Amino acid sequence: MKKILFLSLLIAFGCKQIETSDQTSTPTFGIVIHGGAGTILRVNMTPEREAAYREVLAEAIQVGHTILKNGGSSQEAVEKTIHIMEDSPLFNAGKGAVLTSDETIELDASFMHGAQLDAGAISGVKTIRHPISAAIKVMENSPHVMLSGVGADAFAASQGLEIVAPEYFFTERRINSLKRVKEAEAKKESISSTEEAFVQHQRYGTVGCVALDLEGNLAAGTSTGGMTNKKWNRIGDAPIIGAGTYANNATCAISATGWGEFFIRSVVAHDISALMEYKGLSIQEAAHTVIHDKVGGLGGDGGVVGIDSKGNVAMEMNTPGMYRAHMDAEGKLNVKIYKD
Amino acid sequence: MKKILFLSLLIAFGCKQIETSDQTSTPTFGIVIHGGAGTILRVNMTPEREAAYREVLAEAIQVGHTILKNGGSSQEAVEKTIHIMEDSPLFNAGKGAVLTSDETIELDASFMHGAQLDAGAISGVKTIRHPISAAIKVMENSPHVMLSGVGADAFAASQGLEIVAPEYFFTERRINSLKRVKEAEAKKESISSTEEAFVQHQRYGTVGCVALDLEGNLAAGTSTGGMTNKKWNRIGDAPIIGAGTYANNATCAISATGWGEFFIRSVVAHDISALMEYKGLSIQEAAHTVIHDKVGGLGGDGGVVGIDSKGNVAMEMNTPGMYRAHMDAEGKLNVKIYKD
Repeated sequence: MKKILFLSLLIAFGCKQIETSDQTSTPTFGIVIHGGAGTILRVNMTPEREAAYREVLAEAIQVGHTILKNGGSSQEAVEKTIHIMEDSPLFNAGKGAVLTSDETIELDASFMHGAQLDAGAISGVKTIRHPISAAIKVMENSPHVMLSGVGADAFAASQGLEIVAPEYFFTERRINSLKRVKEAEAKKESISSTEEAFVQHQRYGTVGCVALDLEGNLAAGTSTGGMTNKKWNRIGDAPIIGAGTYANNATCAISATGWGEFFIRSVVAHDISALMEYKGLSIQEAAHTVIHDKVGGLGGDGGVVGIDSKGNVAMEMNTPGMYRAHMDAEGKLNVKIYKD
Repeated sequence: MKKILFLSLLIAFGCKQIETSDQTSTPTFGIVIHGGAGTILRVNMTPEREAAYREVLAEAIQVGHTILKNGGSSQEAVEKTIHIMEDSPLFNAGKGAVLTSDETIELDASFMHGAQLDAGAISGVKTIRHPISAAIKVMENSPHVMLSGVGADAFAASQGLEIVAPEYFFTERRINSLKRVKEAEAKKESISSTEEAFVQHQRYGTVGCVALDLEGNLAAGTSTGGMTNKKWNRIGDAPIIGAGTYANNATCAISATGWGEFFIRSVVAHDISALMEYKGLSIQEAAHTVIHDKVGGLGGDGGVVGIDSKGNVAMEMNTPGMYRAHMDAEGKLNVKIYKD
């Protein structure tokens, strides 16, 4: 009798299992990163430089992937992955950030969590080693979403985040870039096309990360030094929730990079989510529409990375290149730089 | 012969006219404003105070309405209407703005034009009499969308905008408000419900205007002093394109007011536009969904005013009141304060 009961339970449980797996998908996870979109051309790239970019992208995404694989949160994966890129002088975020017109550093970052639509952002900070962590602290420990300037620096310091001297961020490459951009600006009429491509390239290099964890939570983060030679305490799209960063468990997590002014006007990250939520587009269709038709339609350029609640990803751009990488639950790594 | 030709032309022209008016709607115009949403209760209002609010709301909207009626642009109507409210000490924008925790003034504003999705915004300025005009100058005369802090003040000065001493903005009412909010903050545990309502009320008072002109162009503008007692150079939703302000000729123009943090997380203004564009909702349905289901669902409160490309308007809030007014092409004026 006991045996029959056991068998019945086994069959019933088995059926229940099958039913469940029919109705809901198996938990999965995934992570996508970018290190900026722009005029990235093979002709301007040395094999050493390309290898260096690929190495940091692979290292960064591996950090987040390991966290997710071990059941860690998408928030932690995004934060720790972005730290690697903020610490690398190759990208325009944290160390290696571009210089303002006044030869200072002004860093912007934002973070959003898809479960409760919690968000945090900072703009124009000068002393925080990891701006993405400051954005997360604003979300977690302040009543605000967005802090700026010296106030944001002071808040980050009060939270025990690592503070560094402004010189920490400066790299010879960015000092030279500012010099060249200022020279090009001064003689606007005679700028060569190579120089123009160079100046154009200096706009970009923002880093970002989106992740889906095994709990089904989406998160997105973006960190940048903004535009070389920026003036008047300009704020770009990176710290703007809805423009540079957005996450919503119902749809997707998005991090953008590109010509920030166009991305603000197009409310890029939220528009991708809205096309999915209200029009039923896939993440690839939505990202393609917004980057090519909306941003491109206005004359802007750049790209996004995104991941949806099923682990589908988008890496879309209307520029010749975007430093980017994707790693799925199986650990398949895909690092790309150029469009093709 | 000439007479017949003339008659034929007249008939042909007449038919063309009829055809056109069958296919497209007659050009119309309209304007809607708000002066902040919050715990505005009859029990706390004197007849004199209510009359004063109604008078400024009527004066402000009349300015914009006259511009629109005479064929002026929605941009000019929004700018000039907001000037009246920025100059009035009754509202939390320009003169009469609330004070930060450091007893300073930090003004935020943004503007968006619906034709080309052009936009401009400033945050944390301290010396500009009319912040909305600074936002418009950023849009028109800088390569950027958003400037902040001393840089934004410097840019505005370079544009010939009226600069005033910081003391210009200070009013006794707001100095007392800061004192009371700080006292309430200090003794958080013993705060009375009346005092709580007062503290709550100090969050609000942002002004905004949306307009449709006879050319079919939509425009939206928002201007604010932010939250009483704000710290760390906090930025609210008012200067965030997509959150506090959005305009798109294809859908609507929106200006928001309320608990800014929730409005940023909900990307309020763009979400209303997206619900219209992608789901076919009317402006009233879209505004109702976003204010009650989205913002309200997160625990936030506030309201929006909006106008669509046909002149349909929305004045939606989930607070007991919102200072607001609407004027249609016929010149019918509707000023309201309370929910009912």
